[in-house]
Amino acid sequence: MIDHFVRSHIAAMSGYEPGEQPVADKCIKLNTNENPYPPSPRVKQAIQNALETGLVRYPDPTASSFRLRAGEVLGVDPDWILCGNGSDDILTIVMRCLVGEGQPLRIPYPSYILYKTLAGIQGARCQEVLFEQDWSLTAAFAEPDGDPRLAFFPNPNNPSGTTIPPDQLMELADRLPCPLLIDEAYADFTDQHCIDLVKQSENVMVMRSMSKSYALAGLRFGFLVAQPAIIAQLMKVKDSYNCDALSIAGATGAIDDQEWLVENCRRVIATRERMTSDLIQLGFSVVPSQANFVWCTRRDQPVRPIYENLKQNQLLVRYMDYPNWGDGLRISVGTEDQIDACLTLIASAL
Amino acid sequence: MIDHFVRSHIAAMSGYEPGEQPVADKCIKLNTNENPYPPSPRVKQAIQNALETGLVRYPDPTASSFRLRAGEVLGVDPDWILCGNGSDDILTIVMRCLVGEGQPLRIPYPSYILYKTLAGIQGARCQEVLFEQDWSLTAAFAEPDGDPRLAFFPNPNNPSGTTIPPDQLMELADRLPCPLLIDEAYADFTDQHCIDLVKQSENVMVMRSMSKSYALAGLRFGFLVAQPAIIAQLMKVKDSYNCDALSIAGATGAIDDQEWLVENCRRVIATRERMTSDLIQLGFSVVPSQANFVWCTRRDQPVRPIYENLKQNQLLVRYMDYPNWGDGLRISVGTEDQIDACLTLIASAL
Repeated sequence: MIDHFVRSHIAAMSGYEPGEQPVADKCIKLNTNENPYPPSPRVKQAIQNALETGLVRYPDPTASSFRLRAGEVLGVDPDWILCGNGSDDILTIVMRCLVGEGQPLRIPYPSYILYKTLAGIQGARCQEVLFEQDWSLTAAFAEPDGDPRLAFFPNPNNPSGTTIPPDQLMELADRLPCPLLIDEAYADFTDQHCIDLVKQSENVMVMRSMSKSYALAGLRFGFLVAQPAIIAQLMKVKDSYNCDALSIAGATGAIDDQEWLVENCRRVIATRERMTSDLIQLGFSVVPSQANFVWCTRRDQPVRPIYENLKQNQLLVRYMDYPNWGDGLRISVGTEDQIDACLTLIASAL
Repeated sequence: MIDHFVRSHIAAMSGYEPGEQPVADKCIKLNTNENPYPPSPRVKQAIQNALETGLVRYPDPTASSFRLRAGEVLGVDPDWILCGNGSDDILTIVMRCLVGEGQPLRIPYPSYILYKTLAGIQGARCQEVLFEQDWSLTAAFAEPDGDPRLAFFPNPNNPSGTTIPPDQLMELADRLPCPLLIDEAYADFTDQHCIDLVKQSENVMVMRSMSKSYALAGLRFGFLVAQPAIIAQLMKVKDSYNCDALSIAGATGAIDDQEWLVENCRRVIATRERMTSDLIQLGFSVVPSQANFVWCTRRDQPVRPIYENLKQNQLLVRYMDYPNWGDGLRISVGTEDQIDACLTLIASAL
């Protein structure tokens, strides 16, 4: 039996379950934090240009055109940027470079579930440090206990949408006995970011995704900002041609259009604020979110039946149940109409 | 210093060097085995359709549309297929699933250089088994010594372009104490393949690439054919969304057009046969190739100056020097005109 050859920690894993991707088009999908609005028209234009150039040649191994433009936008040199086949690829690259079998990865809890899955694949151990009940950071996160080799910290956090101010994160990085990757997948929906910290400390890395604020989940493109010494090491671990020619072109077109990004985020944020107060009106506890989703809990009744009811009505949100923490609904910010439909359905289900 | 945190075996690595990708358009590029002819027009059509659908949604995690069509073409069920972001992604997934830190991977030597790099990243050990001087297989490849956890075998081999008949590989798989991945990146340029062996043995996996025969190196798409029990394990290791929406669409369009594939390969093979005899005429030793490149050596003079000379004349071939084996030029099959130019330059450099 071939199963006998599978490494034991992988055979024992159940594997990551991505959010449901319904086949039916009429479904309203508020479960995987995709953007409700289209990407910049420059994306399509850039991809069509790349298609004309053709696909017979291998792509640029380091996605130079993207790094050049992103460097200008972010105020860093291109050699401070590493591109990935989605930011999940970046997480894997950094983990494989820094964390060996049996070594610890430190993460906050509850946070992005994939971190633990990636640690599982690598055979690494997860040191999960509980957030305070108000989603602020506990001092324990920076303690040297147990020799962590790497820490992931999502800011804004998923599923809470909450943030820790950059100065607190800098303090954290200074106290941590290992490098810190700040996952800024959702940072464009807030007004703070940590790229300046990378310039102050070679132990800080900042990761971005094009899936959320740039509306390009289908393209798979993410990137890391870090000092060149660590980028050079990470380059050894990444697949030579991890980004294809079309996604490099599309991502470059997207990051080139900052006006589109700002306007897209403005609309998402406006709807987020409105749905937050409406959900509170409906009796939910909603922690103020800085991302493109809101985390809703309630004490008076279980929320799982609400999720089930929405699903029966072709509206998907994410139901999450965190052991030793509690459950809740994570609702992505959709269009105004989608959120109207969602709130109406919820009101009738209560 | 952050370098201090990098895992020691990775810090000690030099990293994989992909073939040169010149910026100058006028360069003739015969160094990375790309296809000299364009992909099927169905590729562009499929990508444009996917672009119209939009990129805001995450792609299908298992590339079902591709697996359905590829399954029909290859005569296997879709759940026997795993898709990857290029076949290099497949190699990494299989390695991470089966080979732990310090455990051995068995490969023939000389063969695809990336195998050793991937083992290095994983912290695995490489057991390199020398080919016989005529590139036939030595019995030692199947010996149980040293407890190998996985074997890679490229068929056709790179850089030689030689093949081992399927029945010999079946025998090899039966004797090997571990699973065998047959890397068929170049199999469309020969008239044999090993997909039937997968049906006979759960220890055999066959990998294909869309970069060579389908002329889609820029798209990054490869796949594995294996029994469902091992596919299910590999699924746990792969990135959830490892293939993007455009590459899934393009690859599906490509595999749908088998007529285009056959005609493209026919032209490449015709040129390969012609250039082989011309190179022999010029005094090279050329082993008959079943791939889209030829491996040329010579005894009367070193070949490195020939490579340098070609490069000065904007024509790139791959110079390779294998310790304990010898050096040679690996020349990709180009168009008839490109090969004319190459042979003329070589003749003048001798």
